[in-house]
Amino acid sequence: MTGLGLASAALGGIAAPGTAGAADTPIGEKWWPSRWGPDDQAGASNHMTPEKTLAAVQQIRTGKVHSLGRVYERDMPLFGERVFALRTPGMPTGGTFGDNKIIWNDEFLATEIGQVGTQFDGLGHIGVEAGAPGEQTRRRLYNGVTMAEAASPYGLKKLGVENVKPFFTPGLLVDVMGLKGGMLEAGTEVTLADLLAALERQGLSAEAIAPGDVVMVRTGWGLLWKEDNARYNNGAPGIGMEAARYLAERQVSLVGADTWGVEVVPNPDSNQVFPVHQELLVRHGIYLQENLDFESLAADGTWQFAYVFAPLPIKGATGSPGNPLAVT
Amino acid sequence: MTGLGLASAALGGIAAPGTAGAADTPIGEKWWPSRWGPDDQAGASNHMTPEKTLAAVQQIRTGKVHSLGRVYERDMPLFGERVFALRTPGMPTGGTFGDNKIIWNDEFLATEIGQVGTQFDGLGHIGVEAGAPGEQTRRRLYNGVTMAEAASPYGLKKLGVENVKPFFTPGLLVDVMGLKGGMLEAGTEVTLADLLAALERQGLSAEAIAPGDVVMVRTGWGLLWKEDNARYNNGAPGIGMEAARYLAERQVSLVGADTWGVEVVPNPDSNQVFPVHQELLVRHGIYLQENLDFESLAADGTWQFAYVFAPLPIKGATGSPGNPLAVT
Amino acid sequence: MTGLGLASAALGGIAAPGTAGAADTPIGEKWWPSRWGPDDQAGASNHMTPEKTLAAVQQIRTGKVHSLGRVYERDMPLFGERVFALRTPGMPTGGTFGDNKIIWNDEFLATEIGQVGTQFDGLGHIGVEAGAPGEQTRRRLYNGVTMAEAASPYGLKKLGVENVKPFFTPGLLVDVMGLKGGMLEAGTEVTLADLLAALERQGLSAEAIAPGDVVMVRTGWGLLWKEDNARYNNGAPGIGMEAARYLAERQVSLVGADTWGVEVVPNPDSNQVFPVHQELLVRHGIYLQENLDFESLAADGTWQFAYVFAPLPIKGATGSPGNPLAVT
Amino acid sequence: MTGLGLASAALGGIAAPGTAGAADTPIGEKWWPSRWGPDDQAGASNHMTPEKTLAAVQQIRTGKVHSLGRVYERDMPLFGERVFALRTPGMPTGGTFGDNKIIWNDEFLATEIGQVGTQFDGLGHIGVEAGAPGEQTRRRLYNGVTMAEAASPYGLKKLGVENVKPFFTPGLLVDVMGLKGGMLEAGTEVTLADLLAALERQGLSAEAIAPGDVVMVRTGWGLLWKEDNARYNNGAPGIGMEAARYLAERQVSLVGADTWGVEVVPNPDSNQVFPVHQELLVRHGIYLQENLDFESLAADGTWQFAYVFAPLPIKGATGSPGNPLAVT
Repeated sequence: MTGLGLASAALGGIAAPGTAGAADTPIGEKWWPSRWGPDDQAGASNHMTPEKTLAAVQQIRTGKVHSLGRVYERDMPLFGERVFALRTPGMPTGGTFGDNKIIWNDEFLATEIGQVGTQFDGLGHIGVEAGAPGEQTRRRLYNGVTMAEAASPYGLKKLGVENVKPFFTPGLLVDVMGLKGGMLEAGTEVTLADLLAALERQGLSAEAIAPGDVVMVRTGWGLLWKEDNARYNNGAPGIGMEAARYLAERQVSLVGADTWGVEVVPNPDSNQVFPVHQELLVRHGIYLQENLDFESLAADGTWQFAYVFAPLPIKGATGSPGNPLAVT
Repeated sequence: MTGLGLASAALGGIAAPGTAGAADTPIGEKWWPSRWGPDDQAGASNHMTPEKTLAAVQQIRTGKVHSLGRVYERDMPLFGERVFALRTPGMPTGGTFGDNKIIWNDEFLATEIGQVGTQFDGLGHIGVEAGAPGEQTRRRLYNGVTMAEAASPYGLKKLGVENVKPFFTPGLLVDVMGLKGGMLEAGTEVTLADLLAALERQGLSAEAIAPGDVVMVRTGWGLLWKEDNARYNNGAPGIGMEAARYLAERQVSLVGADTWGVEVVPNPDSNQVFPVHQELLVRHGIYLQENLDFESLAADGTWQFAYVFAPLPIKGATGSPGNPLAVT
Repeated sequence: MTGLGLASAALGGIAAPGTAGAADTPIGEKWWPSRWGPDDQAGASNHMTPEKTLAAVQQIRTGKVHSLGRVYERDMPLFGERVFALRTPGMPTGGTFGDNKIIWNDEFLATEIGQVGTQFDGLGHIGVEAGAPGEQTRRRLYNGVTMAEAASPYGLKKLGVENVKPFFTPGLLVDVMGLKGGMLEAGTEVTLADLLAALERQGLSAEAIAPGDVVMVRTGWGLLWKEDNARYNNGAPGIGMEAARYLAERQVSLVGADTWGVEVVPNPDSNQVFPVHQELLVRHGIYLQENLDFESLAADGTWQFAYVFAPLPIKGATGSPGNPLAVT
Repeated sequence: MTGLGLASAALGGIAAPGTAGAADTPIGEKWWPSRWGPDDQAGASNHMTPEKTLAAVQQIRTGKVHSLGRVYERDMPLFGERVFALRTPGMPTGGTFGDNKIIWNDEFLATEIGQVGTQFDGLGHIGVEAGAPGEQTRRRLYNGVTMAEAASPYGLKKLGVENVKPFFTPGLLVDVMGLKGGMLEAGTEVTLADLLAALERQGLSAEAIAPGDVVMVRTGWGLLWKEDNARYNNGAPGIGMEAARYLAERQVSLVGADTWGVEVVPNPDSNQVFPVHQELLVRHGIYLQENLDFESLAADGTWQFAYVFAPLPIKGATGSPGNPLAVT
């Protein structure tokens, strides 16, 4: 796997698991304190600066706004035991009041709000058990925060999604589906070579990826959304550790995909479960965004855009729903 | 009230309630079909075009991104019987799995999702009972849609917030607090004269408001947020019908405020309950956004900005939470 | 169908739908005021008196307590769009506190609490639209209560389940499955003749059914519970209008079954949807209990018992979950 | 505190915390395996036998049924961060269908279902941290079950309330309020001497308490329910460790009270937080029932009754709501 060598080289001092002497956690060397300091809770959203905004604005040429988010509804694919239950009380909920005879309606929603539909994975979402089973003091998240510090029944005490800075930054869509000539299959790893080849095919270069940029990976898997939910949830194509390490090296702020997990599932190494989530979120503070819809953007053949997304600042939440925009 | 005369003049053909022969609903003349046709469900978000995006981009000079949204948390002010209950299952929710010993966390949220905290009122939120009490066929919303057509226990069948087009448009902050020299009191109406005077004081003119623009009104009431929730909820300063009609005449797409209802509460006409909601949402399809935080923006003294907001496309919801951005 | 004649005769003055001059609602003659007066909200639970308790006690011979209720869990059959989502926050939810190092756990449940699993249908659950579509003032429930009077977004204002008196009364299990030699099929109506024959086979007589008694109908359908949820929900055997009218004539307080609807689904008259619900709940204030488990009781061959059930007094709820007991 | 000596004597072999050599947990000697074996999950509900049922039946003389449960509603006192949010979708939720024009209503409830209002504390509710902070493998519940074994985000895997056997057993109301001549104050401990004196005053003896019986303690605190919720929640009178140990010695199956915690809060030993919960639930598998209403029973002056209560068998829940009955 030359790609792995490439990525390893790129990672410089960061040892791969198993490297003699270095590894002290199940995912290799300790990853804290973060590059933004030991108290940082914003991760790669720290890249968001006025300069990034202005760089993103340079990508806006026609003024067209593409929604990358999907509609939240009860018949969308849901991971595991999660539910999405919306109820509209009363119909109307309020009224009739006044000579103007006003009525109003509300809705009541019960759901895993940050982990259903189009979702943004925050830094409190993923961790590593670095000690004995069940030891909250050695279950660690981004920046080495322990579950003992973060966990709470009413919302995380640390690394909640309210700490994330809004994104207004250049974005890039890597059309791997276009490269491969069709939807990738579940379990198909998008390699670094695939990413580079797709970019080349699109007339772009990995050199165009600057720190803080957003990279989106189109696999075609999203075509199954609401068409075949069972298949959609049963594995997915996506990037593996090689591409993840490369993107981390490029210091992107977020990686998104038209799949439920961004990364390849099952992982080619059958002993690894969602390792890319750990590599990006835990080790590097790089965010993931899932269940995106790139079809409008791809139809335009526009691969660069201003990516705009403000996570819902729900105190102590592990993630956020939302409709990220690609402005071209 | 000279302002009312002014506004009435401005409204031209739109009859006030009670005008002989014209009124056939509790809020005056019928308001449908909408200017965007009898089937429209997007209201004033129809103003969102590439041209508006490009106009908004012209407002981006420094690249600074201001969050206008507030953090969602259990001790924020809540209207009426609404609740906000976030729970984090398991801690962790998933894991430990794999040699990489991954764990993950979710959160479960039960709330009036579109009507708590910083909120965007959609077109299904407000209506008028235009017939006998309880007649769903004559309870009407935007574009004349009846509750009989829209109501459903599992989300609105029409006018759900998923129909709204994302906002990327010029925005204007009207600093009425600055004009008045401090926080306005509950029940204080922001008149058209106030708006015009505030704009003049800011070196701006109402002429600067183009169709599709967003207008934000700073009253200072937001200073009470989480400082005195009981007082915050007990009435509010805000625009009245006069200013609302003027803004509708200017064809704005959205009016926001640092209060829970945008409009003055209680209304100076004690027989009217939230009439501005009806005027803007029902009659004109103009959106409201509430519980905003303008303090960062005001501190900069920057009154014009690109307003960027993508409502959560929850199928059949009456509104949306979110963190609208003011980019300067 | 001699049974129908019998039942019709028994019903005396109560006209069948279509009877000249009498019918003024879609289900025939008006059914209010109730036999317990125009303000009654307790329906057939008014039969619960100390005398009934003492009569029930007479059925207790061995002291054996049978649970008729099923476990509430996420993989039980659910009707329509209902959900059952239980989450355990924090693990633990509270603690650690004190030298005694206490911790505690809670659970958070979001569900249609009165209408999932083993369920007791209250008087606010079922109604009849007796006017034009959508007229809340002519949608009527038990005792003629209108939806305009009862409906509210935060719980019914009338006929909430908190008005029901706890049941401690003689109960009777009618073993129609035993009579037929196996599980009845979906759409199979349990006729009055079936009920009478089953009772005879069990050495009992319909004469044994006194006002306020509870009658349970075993169809065998419950054997599909969690074995084949799709089939379980797709129709059911059960009593039809004939048996319902007979049981109403006997003035039972509650009818239960090992199905999700007590009554035969689909109804043999394809123009009728759940008419037994209306006959019993709306017209007579007789309660229904669904998704029961009679297998323990049937295995003992004990057909008479003290039925004990106290609905959860949730203010304004349409029904109640619970574990009814059959004490023998 | 002579009472403590009395209770310690009564406890026989069970060492108090600090006893040399014996204590290996923060609450003293290890308490597992339980008297019902190492796999037991039913605790003191194992006392429920046909014989207990028949003994309870002996208490039924008049047939009067008293509800000891309170109505569940949004303005009841709630502990800590718990919520109670009921919504009625659609109004109606279903219909109109069929020539019979049926409609139906549901309700959607989001709440800490087993830990709000009148509540039954199950064996998964309370535990002890017996190891280092956050070690799930050494947080122990009844019968020594660890949090590592029981905890799960979707309901407890062990000790869920579905394992509890329904109660039909003799009950006894101890009228401490009557003894003291009025409502006890928050922080007032009901001592063993108080219990014995109250029983004597009622013409009863502690000798009357047999294994499996239920003991209810009336403090009068329930008079504050919905009258002064803030005061109601701010501490409570109740039994202390002395009385708890005595009741455990008597092998009762459940202890209930007209307070939110059964036990005295704050505990006279300010280093102890809810120690009675641990003594009864964790050490002995004896259930607690809280927020009961004894006023109807006390008004009758009837102190002995058949106690009937079937917990809602919610899989993996820590407790249960419900309306326990006292039949006299």
